[in-house]
Amino acid sequence: MAPFARVALIGLGLIGSSIARAVREHMPGATLTGYDADAKVRARARELGLLDQAPSSAAEAVAEADLVILCVPVGGMDAAAAEIAAALPPAAIVSDVGSSKASVATALRQRLPGARIVPAHPVAGTENSGPDAGFASLFRGRWCILTPDEEAAPADVEAVAEFWRQLGAKVEIMDAKHHDLVLAVTSHLPHLIAYTIVGTASDLEEVTESEVIKYSAGGFRDFTRIAASNPTMWRDIFLANKEAVLDMLQRFHEDLTMLQRAIRWDDGDTLFELFTRTRAIRRGLVEQGQDVARPDFGRSEG
Amino acid sequence: MAPFARVALIGLGLIGSSIARAVREHMPGATLTGYDADAKVRARARELGLLDQAPSSAAEAVAEADLVILCVPVGGMDAAAAEIAAALPPAAIVSDVGSSKASVATALRQRLPGARIVPAHPVAGTENSGPDAGFASLFRGRWCILTPDEEAAPADVEAVAEFWRQLGAKVEIMDAKHHDLVLAVTSHLPHLIAYTIVGTASDLEEVTESEVIKYSAGGFRDFTRIAASNPTMWRDIFLANKEAVLDMLQRFHEDLTMLQRAIRWDDGDTLFELFTRTRAIRRGLVEQGQDVARPDFGRSEG
Repeated sequence: MAPFARVALIGLGLIGSSIARAVREHMPGATLTGYDADAKVRARARELGLLDQAPSSAAEAVAEADLVILCVPVGGMDAAAAEIAAALPPAAIVSDVGSSKASVATALRQRLPGARIVPAHPVAGTENSGPDAGFASLFRGRWCILTPDEEAAPADVEAVAEFWRQLGAKVEIMDAKHHDLVLAVTSHLPHLIAYTIVGTASDLEEVTESEVIKYSAGGFRDFTRIAASNPTMWRDIFLANKEAVLDMLQRFHEDLTMLQRAIRWDDGDTLFELFTRTRAIRRGLVEQGQDVARPDFGRSEG
Repeated sequence: MAPFARVALIGLGLIGSSIARAVREHMPGATLTGYDADAKVRARARELGLLDQAPSSAAEAVAEADLVILCVPVGGMDAAAAEIAAALPPAAIVSDVGSSKASVATALRQRLPGARIVPAHPVAGTENSGPDAGFASLFRGRWCILTPDEEAAPADVEAVAEFWRQLGAKVEIMDAKHHDLVLAVTSHLPHLIAYTIVGTASDLEEVTESEVIKYSAGGFRDFTRIAASNPTMWRDIFLANKEAVLDMLQRFHEDLTMLQRAIRWDDGDTLFELFTRTRAIRRGLVEQGQDVARPDFGRSEG
């Protein structure tokens, strides 16, 4: 039995459109409405038949919902919440999919006083953006983290948890601040590093961009994938989770400086010790089903 | 027509064993001999039937070869060259597969005076190591960079180029110093960064290793793949290509510091501008066939 009968999605990009497709597949009885601030995206969602109704305002989209999910960049959560505030049914549960949670929780509580709020973050995605990039299996086997505050009713949290489980995700509940720290290291720092190195490589005088691309199989191309992610989404994340990201950056910088020094002074043992340790992390990650075991991501098979 | 009739491989790990398999597939008439300093690896190579002969010394392995390829970590090239020096047939061409070229070229010229040397670097690999990890198609569609010095005869360079083309690679010829700069950015720096971030993540007090693994789908897991590469090989590369790696690290550090400052001062425009630019690099790379276009490396399809 699906926990919600009428689901409204605000934002129809990669995540919103994937939720729409997954709801269609796993909750065939549910009614889907949705809205995107970009008229072109709304039109495309209609063409793709993602929704039962795609009205031209966020307020109309949520007017009869029992679950509203805000699927906009975290910097847009405040505005999206403001847009639905007057039309939101009092019994509706409001959730989101933001990659940083403390700042979003504050925005939602301020804009929607008294609302039934259960913030969520499905840890899943691809480097592609927009309604065409979504697919129903995106959340399958991935974790979805809920970060309810003390005002959230346990039954509401369980309903949102059940929603995500029915889309194929595994659910974990966590404090918003801890979430932001965990994701700073598992997601935000990796993206920042990837964006940086791709930028560094494209700015060299002695090495052409064409050479960088040709010889990228040596490791660089792995970074380009996540450095192709949605720029607006990621700008917002770094600004929203500033404190934790700057903390992780500082630690990363210290560790990198240690390795830089080891290289300069021919200290092979320090390098070897770290390189052996990091291998074990990969092994654990593959064993726990969080990545494919195929060498080179299976590229050579393709 | 295969350019060489008797190929000797010194080092039977991922790359050596992949060459053996590819030679079997593409040059069925060639005789393959090989040696590895590790007796267990030699025994495994015999079990796998990778070679026609797997003698117990490097000297025996090269005694009748017309092409010798050193497939050992770059820090082991000097010792490997010393081992074969006395037994090397004067007409044999000596090549290697080292990921840094200037230091290897110096070692080979010193140890093998008068030899016909054509250094090479196939820009291909996986995160796995050892004779079981190799496969025949590893070099297909990848670039192999030759870095002959002024002593190398054009006909020798062409013979080695043809060898790699017959294994499926595309061949480029480049100055050793330029190679080392290009690879510092497309391969060495990415590996160093990946090793660092995986180490940073595993050293946190407030976030457990189990959490890092669980939520790695947010980006982190992409880094763990290359941070699982052979520790000896990579220690050697950073020490051998010290100058170029330290130069690239300095540039990377400047760029990262700029982004760090942008985050601290809420300068979203600087972030957005870079994140948009890096997206274009990914597009070029996929268009030129240097990576799979499947979103998320096709993981969700699996």
